[in-house]
Amino acid sequence: VNILLHYIEKTFDVKSKILDFHHPHQLLEGLDGFDLELSDRPESLEQLLVDCTDTLKYGVKTGHPRYFNQLSSGLDVIGLAGEWLTATANTNMFTYEIAPVFTIMETVLLKKMCEIIGWRETEADGIFSPGGSISNLYGILVARYKQYPEIKAKGMAVLPCIVLFVSEQGHYSIKKAAATLGIGTDNVIEVKCDERGKMIPAELEKNILQAKRKGQTPFCVVATAGSTVFGAFDPLHDIADICEIHRLWMHVDAAWGGGLLLSRKHSYKLSGIERADSVTWNPHKLMGVPLQCSALLTREKGLLGACNQMQAEYLFQPDKVYNINFDTGDKTIQCGRHVDVFKLWLMWKAKGTYGFEVQIDRYMELAKYFYKVLKKKDNFKLVFDAEPEFTNVCFWYFPPRLKHIPKSFERDQELQKIAPKIKAQMIVEGTVMLSYQPCGDKVNFFRMVFSNPATRQTDVDYLIDEIQRLGKDL
Amino acid sequence: VNILLHYIEKTFDVKSKILDFHHPHQLLEGLDGFDLELSDRPESLEQLLVDCTDTLKYGVKTGHPRYFNQLSSGLDVIGLAGEWLTATANTNMFTYEIAPVFTIMETVLLKKMCEIIGWRETEADGIFSPGGSISNLYGILVARYKQYPEIKAKGMAVLPCIVLFVSEQGHYSIKKAAATLGIGTDNVIEVKCDERGKMIPAELEKNILQAKRKGQTPFCVVATAGSTVFGAFDPLHDIADICEIHRLWMHVDAAWGGGLLLSRKHSYKLSGIERADSVTWNPHKLMGVPLQCSALLTREKGLLGACNQMQAEYLFQPDKVYNINFDTGDKTIQCGRHVDVFKLWLMWKAKGTYGFEVQIDRYMELAKYFYKVLKKKDNFKLVFDAEPEFTNVCFWYFPPRLKHIPKSFERDQELQKIAPKIKAQMIVEGTVMLSYQPCGDKVNFFRMVFSNPATRQTDVDYLIDEIQRLGKDL
Ligand SMILES: Cc1ncc(COP(=O)(O)O)c(C=O)c1O
Ligand SMILES: Cc1ncc(COP(=O)(O)O)c(C=O)c1O
Repeated sequence: VNILLHYIEKTFDVKSKILDFHHPHQLLEGLDGFDLELSDRPESLEQLLVDCTDTLKYGVKTGHPRYFNQLSSGLDVIGLAGEWLTATANTNMFTYEIAPVFTIMETVLLKKMCEIIGWRETEADGIFSPGGSISNLYGILVARYKQYPEIKAKGMAVLPCIVLFVSEQGHYSIKKAAATLGIGTDNVIEVKCDERGKMIPAELEKNILQAKRKGQTPFCVVATAGSTVFGAFDPLHDIADICEIHRLWMHVDAAWGGGLLLSRKHSYKLSGIERADSVTWNPHKLMGVPLQCSALLTREKGLLGACNQMQAEYLFQPDKVYNINFDTGDKTIQCGRHVDVFKLWLMWKAKGTYGFEVQIDRYMELAKYFYKVLKKKDNFKLVFDAEPEFTNVCFWYFPPRLKHIPKSFERDQELQKIAPKIKAQMIVEGTVMLSYQPCGDKVNFFRMVFSNPATRQTDVDYLIDEIQRLGKDL
Repeated sequence: VNILLHYIEKTFDVKSKILDFHHPHQLLEGLDGFDLELSDRPESLEQLLVDCTDTLKYGVKTGHPRYFNQLSSGLDVIGLAGEWLTATANTNMFTYEIAPVFTIMETVLLKKMCEIIGWRETEADGIFSPGGSISNLYGILVARYKQYPEIKAKGMAVLPCIVLFVSEQGHYSIKKAAATLGIGTDNVIEVKCDERGKMIPAELEKNILQAKRKGQTPFCVVATAGSTVFGAFDPLHDIADICEIHRLWMHVDAAWGGGLLLSRKHSYKLSGIERADSVTWNPHKLMGVPLQCSALLTREKGLLGACNQMQAEYLFQPDKVYNINFDTGDKTIQCGRHVDVFKLWLMWKAKGTYGFEVQIDRYMELAKYFYKVLKKKDNFKLVFDAEPEFTNVCFWYFPPRLKHIPKSFERDQELQKIAPKIKAQMIVEGTVMLSYQPCGDKVNFFRMVFSNPATRQTDVDYLIDEIQRLGKDL
């Protein structure tokens, strides 16, 4: 416990390094006596404590104020306490019998989240799953089942060629889900986006009609509320209109953007989400809940159960002493299921809805600040010129030698190499961590993102200085 | 932390109650000021601590020496420390970049487990997943992809009617997986078992030929090594022979039985597992690792990656500073993935392979002891008369009024009600927890199972006395 508390203290200290980088082969070979191999005989308690210290030493401090690498970052100490308690209770979500408090907490949380989405149904439904990708898979699975309940027993063989739609900026888990579910990635039709990364409704309509003409059968549209790279919000009302006309299931992937619903100032960006049939919302991203914590919510009560239940007699005995409607485990595609709800519940108690709101509004302010500073600097260029809608800010850094060269294939070839080189140096020095990627015809650019409660304005300034320091001679 | 340490102490104390039972509606309504509802405003720190205490108070002590309810039980303090550290590090398994130590530990563990299975390939492969059900899904997913790589892009539409086989005692997650993957539960063919619950090879052969005659295309056989209810081991060599002849993928569901490979005395029961193409093995069951911890292992390196990868550019940048072969996250159907390996790694360091062996051999001794005691008592009847092969022991209790009535429909109708009534009373009194179920023509019987390191012989004696006390007047 002391080792852990010491680590937490260092995590929040901006002066400590985010990571102490080593290459994979170095770790595999064993660093300074940190031997990862397993043997037949036990190690001493002292050695175990050294192992623990080393594990933390060579790891990455994802709660460090200057860790901006992923959408999930930060270390909430209440959430952490929640996770420690969960680990200590070490139980499983399948039945009320062995997780009475946690299954009820799940019910309470799902109800709360459905209310926040704006579903007026008194009984919406949902499930916590091991991540947004699995939640998205549930969304598509339920969409398919709703349209074709015979799928469960008969498989895809009895279905027409079904297709679904998602924007070209949608998350790759939609394609993974389509591959897994036996739909196939070719049957995920990518809809074009506007210059901000939002799905263009007219393109969606066009794609649906085209698919029908080709003899394909559309069944589902996935809208993205908060895209991974650009933080874009698809126009949900327009998409809902199209789904209504064509009778398609509307799933909203709000894995990243869902948290924004808690901000009275910014929640309008998800307006229309209340018209969705299902929603993915990851508290482990914007809300800062420790990993893993993701929910799939559906408007139609009972569908998840009908789609997934197998009524195994050894687990879901009908002749129990309590109301077995609370044995919710058969709604899932899992059997054992980790308790992911307690940390979220405890954080909600600790902050209240308003506490999340304050935190999220602060990220939005930081994003605006960052955008404004970059806009003034002539060695940085924003990928989109407009004020950010979310906490993602994408940009290029131009070292002096490239700054005055006009855009051309050759210049872009050089620019492509800049972000990876700066990133490599960041990792080696361990000062900040920031992600980059190319996208379509845009060569490698950085993606800044705010979801870390420890981040202050000075850390933003530091990041800008650091990029310039590491990049100026490239 | 003090609340948690106090709870751990009480967990191990046989004199404390396993649970303090309340009905779902009581918890929903709020017990003694334990209010589960969430509000806009924060609660005080004192109230949060009370909430934590209450959560533990109304929960189930799964580490209690007399908790026998599930295959996962017990509370290993080293594993717990591992989980606390994991929570503190709060990172994600997708790339080496943000989880350098943990991704390498996963590699080390997968290699070790493949070696123990007996695969001589120098480079077997695998992935840790959020539970045995998902691991089984991976097994079938990879089997399908191996036979039909076009499935990934084209979906099931381009495949023949594929079918797979599992014994009637196989785990229900196989059917769940078939439903999810778009294969359909009707295409999971259940193979008959012998009186011990083991798949009958001749029946498997017959079913395969029958399917072929019907125009179906067999692609995979799932053998079970350690079945959920009876703890039966399918004859793996016979099944492997059949799979070879018919060129079928052999997946072994050793979610429960896999741990037995660590016992030099008992591992022969899984002989033939080295001929499998893929294996599910849950360290969170017999090995006592805290939930969740499950691995899917495959003999063919690279297949998981080919089957699942999407190469999202924002995460799996090709131009990184380190060897990107260690960015193993694209092998999964997830994106973010919880770190489940550290607690297992730490326990392995702490116990050594021999430490697990000692623990597992002790469970086998306890099962044998329990079996022998029951055999001598005329108010108990074993479901199988032979000595247990695993730690599962299934049995009926006969209250005096039913003891001398010969088997008949009417007697069985009465016997069916006995186990649920005793179980209900156990829960209400909180003294022991034990599972029951019907199975085929066998009415409700109890399933005893040993996987809890805190259990002693006296707890076994206590259980028998307790069943008699609670059941004698029924
Ligand atoms: C034989 C077998 N396979 C698979 C599973 C599923 O494992 P999990 O609960 O981790 O999903 C179980 C669970 O009891 C099992 O007994
Ligand atoms: C928009 C979006 N959807 C889904 C996901 C997947 O979430 P997870 O990593 O929890 O699987 C992500 C992850 O970044 C995301 O950005």
